[in-house]
Amino acid sequence: MATNDRWLREINWSQDGLVPAIAQDAETGKVLMVAWMNREALKATAESGAAVYWSRSRKRLWRKGEESGHVQKVRSIRLDCDEDVILLEVEQVGGIACHTGRANCFFRRLEGSQWVVTDPVLKEPGQIYGADGGDAPGKGGSAE
Amino acid sequence: MATNDRWLREINWSQDGLVPAIAQDAETGKVLMVAWMNREALKATAESGAAVYWSRSRKRLWRKGEESGHVQKVRSIRLDCDEDVILLEVEQVGGIACHTGRANCFFRRLEGSQWVVTDPVLKEPGQIYGADGGDAPGKGGSAE
Repeated sequence: MATNDRWLREINWSQDGLVPAIAQDAETGKVLMVAWMNREALKATAESGAAVYWSRSRKRLWRKGEESGHVQKVRSIRLDCDEDVILLEVEQVGGIACHTGRANCFFRRLEGSQWVVTDPVLKEPGQIYGADGGDAPGKGGSAE
Repeated sequence: MATNDRWLREINWSQDGLVPAIAQDAETGKVLMVAWMNREALKATAESGAAVYWSRSRKRLWRKGEESGHVQKVRSIRLDCDEDVILLEVEQVGGIACHTGRANCFFRRLEGSQWVVTDPVLKEPGQIYGADGGDAPGKGGSAE
């Protein structure tokens, strides 16, 4: 059966062949994280029903939760008006989206002229990815 | 009085000096839109309390609502774990964030292999920006 990929061609991919993808928690409405997708990642996300991103630092597909178990089950995939941003409504397995062990990646808020941490670490990264950090997304300073 | 800009230096700006900024509705939790900010735009957003973006198509600061009146009053500014995405919690004046006249920009949902429009136009762009389109953000095919 031929696959109809027309919907993928409707995306305005960047020169690098990427678009930002926002993961939003289906229950709480919180914005959990932003990562990048290429054509293959978006297709894999749609087909598998779980979020797959493109890791710019590791230069490969990144099946969210492949190391941590913190899979994102995808309830819907949305596209914005100029076809260059994806919005995923997800069920965040384990309740932790961020590689720092927090519920979400936006854990700092600007107060005056300072970024203040407002959200607690729920699980230490060493416990999530193994004592040596494994090839945790955070290794190398990137959340990917 | 010297301004403390250290918080701006903590951002991981892209090679183009930009970061994506998500605007989320403070009331509904809906993700309204994504645009881009440079250093000046983020600083202006923090100082003015209203969202200011960088228009990549027009190559100038874009004070959201400058044409449409659909200003975004900023309640909080958040930063993600790898310091390269901004999340704004906003009060959307007029209830319309998208240049298409919809409440938000993510008005298409993937169903099977088709993008399906799920959200209505609340006000025709011609009524928002003037009959000739003015220099509406949408002109030229960009949401900026």
